[in-house]
Amino acid sequence: MTSRSHAEALDRADPLAEFRTRFVVGDPEHLYLDGNSLGRLPVAGRERLRAVVDQWGDALVGGWHEWIDYPVRVGDALASAVLGAGPGEVIATDSVTVNLFKLVNAALDVRGGGALVSDRGNFPTDRYVLEGVAAARGVELRLFDSDPVFGPSVIDLADCGPGDVVVLSHVAYRSGALADMPALTAEVRSRGATLIWDLSHSVGAVPVDLHGAGAELAVGCTYKYLNGGPGAPAFLYVASALQGSLRSPIWGWFAQSEQFAMDRAYDPLPGVSRFLAGTPPILQLAAVEEGVRVTAEAGIERIREKSVALTSLLVELHDAWLAPLGFSVGTPRDPTRRGSHVSLRHGKAWPITRALIDARVTPDFRGPDSIRLGVAPLYTSFTDVWDALDRLRVIASGEVPDVARARVT
Amino acid sequence: MTSRSHAEALDRADPLAEFRTRFVVGDPEHLYLDGNSLGRLPVAGRERLRAVVDQWGDALVGGWHEWIDYPVRVGDALASAVLGAGPGEVIATDSVTVNLFKLVNAALDVRGGGALVSDRGNFPTDRYVLEGVAAARGVELRLFDSDPVFGPSVIDLADCGPGDVVVLSHVAYRSGALADMPALTAEVRSRGATLIWDLSHSVGAVPVDLHGAGAELAVGCTYKYLNGGPGAPAFLYVASALQGSLRSPIWGWFAQSEQFAMDRAYDPLPGVSRFLAGTPPILQLAAVEEGVRVTAEAGIERIREKSVALTSLLVELHDAWLAPLGFSVGTPRDPTRRGSHVSLRHGKAWPITRALIDARVTPDFRGPDSIRLGVAPLYTSFTDVWDALDRLRVIASGEVPDVARARVT
Repeated sequence: MTSRSHAEALDRADPLAEFRTRFVVGDPEHLYLDGNSLGRLPVAGRERLRAVVDQWGDALVGGWHEWIDYPVRVGDALASAVLGAGPGEVIATDSVTVNLFKLVNAALDVRGGGALVSDRGNFPTDRYVLEGVAAARGVELRLFDSDPVFGPSVIDLADCGPGDVVVLSHVAYRSGALADMPALTAEVRSRGATLIWDLSHSVGAVPVDLHGAGAELAVGCTYKYLNGGPGAPAFLYVASALQGSLRSPIWGWFAQSEQFAMDRAYDPLPGVSRFLAGTPPILQLAAVEEGVRVTAEAGIERIREKSVALTSLLVELHDAWLAPLGFSVGTPRDPTRRGSHVSLRHGKAWPITRALIDARVTPDFRGPDSIRLGVAPLYTSFTDVWDALDRLRVIASGEVPDVARARVT
Repeated sequence: MTSRSHAEALDRADPLAEFRTRFVVGDPEHLYLDGNSLGRLPVAGRERLRAVVDQWGDALVGGWHEWIDYPVRVGDALASAVLGAGPGEVIATDSVTVNLFKLVNAALDVRGGGALVSDRGNFPTDRYVLEGVAAARGVELRLFDSDPVFGPSVIDLADCGPGDVVVLSHVAYRSGALADMPALTAEVRSRGATLIWDLSHSVGAVPVDLHGAGAELAVGCTYKYLNGGPGAPAFLYVASALQGSLRSPIWGWFAQSEQFAMDRAYDPLPGVSRFLAGTPPILQLAAVEEGVRVTAEAGIERIREKSVALTSLLVELHDAWLAPLGFSVGTPRDPTRRGSHVSLRHGKAWPITRALIDARVTPDFRGPDSIRLGVAPLYTSFTDVWDALDRLRVIASGEVPDVARARVT
């Protein structure tokens, strides 16, 4: 099971193996385990970007007859492929930061009266948004400390009450813990509070069932497992039942009914499009559409199945090779409780990360002591995982991996 | 002077004529006079977009070592090429709507106490932002009616007082009137109020001298005369003296000091970067950089000189051909008082606009009665203007232009 031939056999049996060819993969020696930060370039995304750039050149302003629908069209594709939401419930535009700002303010306007609540270990920009809104509106911000490995649980919500607005991440960016979305959603709702999910670290790798969980509000990014490109626009979900009552704090012309009847006062569109603001980034939306398309074709259930197999192999190899070298796993060992990345902890995580990069492995480092290894089932192979952990054990043993030696000499 | 050979002679003498070859221009029969809505695709922009997409494919997350500087780098290029601002005073990110939202709130926080003030004829999204902020913060919104041809003047600011926050457009989107930036800036300041300029309809076609005018705050877009592409990120200017005291209402990780030291409370960067929010759209920022580069190479003074000559020819041909057919000019006749587009008014503006489009001219229509013709000096020729007005006079005479006849038969 620790032999490379085992990993090779898993690759041969992998029903998603051919999807690797849908991505631009240069040097095969380069083991890219940071698709959870920035996903690879889909071949179809590269082609689509060329096409939409040519469309700009040829159709000029007439391109807007098509482009005007992109935020909703890409939102609908996300809703159906990876979010378990309905048409007209999701738009793609702006950044996670801006979209979360919109939803937090909208929720406070209609459902507020209590505190803002989140996990101190939540992704920084989520905390910053909440700090800013709390300061501007004079609302209490209550941060709880969730379990550093398992992330937030219903116990962490013990202080929640009516009028609170809670922001939680579906997968914890540091530990990779997967939150129990149905249980947490039900718990928050039963307390009369409102929950906004940040799906940035799960979407495209873990099935999300917003309707099944009864989720009302969510945001997330598209440049990780959805392969939308650097700075790709984020998405925003508002359950249809809430759309009539919530309003964006940022009133802009793309949310206006009859956008080009320019003399009227602001009167936002009835659906989720009322959370649009300014002119959306059309070229990057086109790229997101292709990223979502390839994900939809593979199927999120099959992606999840492979993700679990990949992270399981990673944990097994850790136990066999790395635990004796002073490593520990900072991620839940039960695969149903983790997303698609694994944090390996070590007192010398930082120099080991640098050495890994020299050895043509791209992980990422999260202070103080975590090496984060992300697997993206559309293009990460089992042998990628095996080879990366093999290089890691060589480095941690104090030796120089062959691939690095070749570059040094 | 109304002969086509006169326009041809102007083209031969045009020092910027060769810049037309820097843009993708397909069918030469197509007369594109809507670069004030969406500028053409620069050849270098197309190449750069391909390069940055390939960089995503090859460098993957490592691309961020370079990309992280894009908002400031593009901002600095804008500052020096077209804004008359200094390095570290401009960033490119988000949309005009979101950036204006940030600045209006920031100004109210530090300088508020009065009303929000703008022109009822200001661009809709500016008004919507102000309506939204006024509603959220319980601040009065005072809209004045400026002259429909000449736009806002110091007389319109008679009610302004300390603590007011004023938003004005440098060029009026409808009439093309060019505001007197130094006079209006001084007037607002003398009244103890704060002025935010929207440069969307002037930047890249009219020299802007923010320092010279003593301007403190501004926003603007890059997809019109700067040729940044559909949905290209906008920019935001904060004079260096104000940067320490103003804070964005949207607190996000790209504005955080030591962005990747993730455990700290929000502590924004000292400079204009504190107005960044989420992850900026890297691919589209790269395209903006190329649009600004070609503008800088041509030089904004030469661009303005040609713009004045183009709009002057347009007005002269109107007077000769169109005034007898019931048209009037809705734009200041003094070229020092207009930007780079001219509004021609006619009771049947809408059907005439449709017929113009059939005749391979792209203008745009602004209700109730304006045909807006924009000239983009980097690629609009004098014969483009002559041919477009020739087709327009044929249509307005009740005939079918040859170019449309060829398509109908």
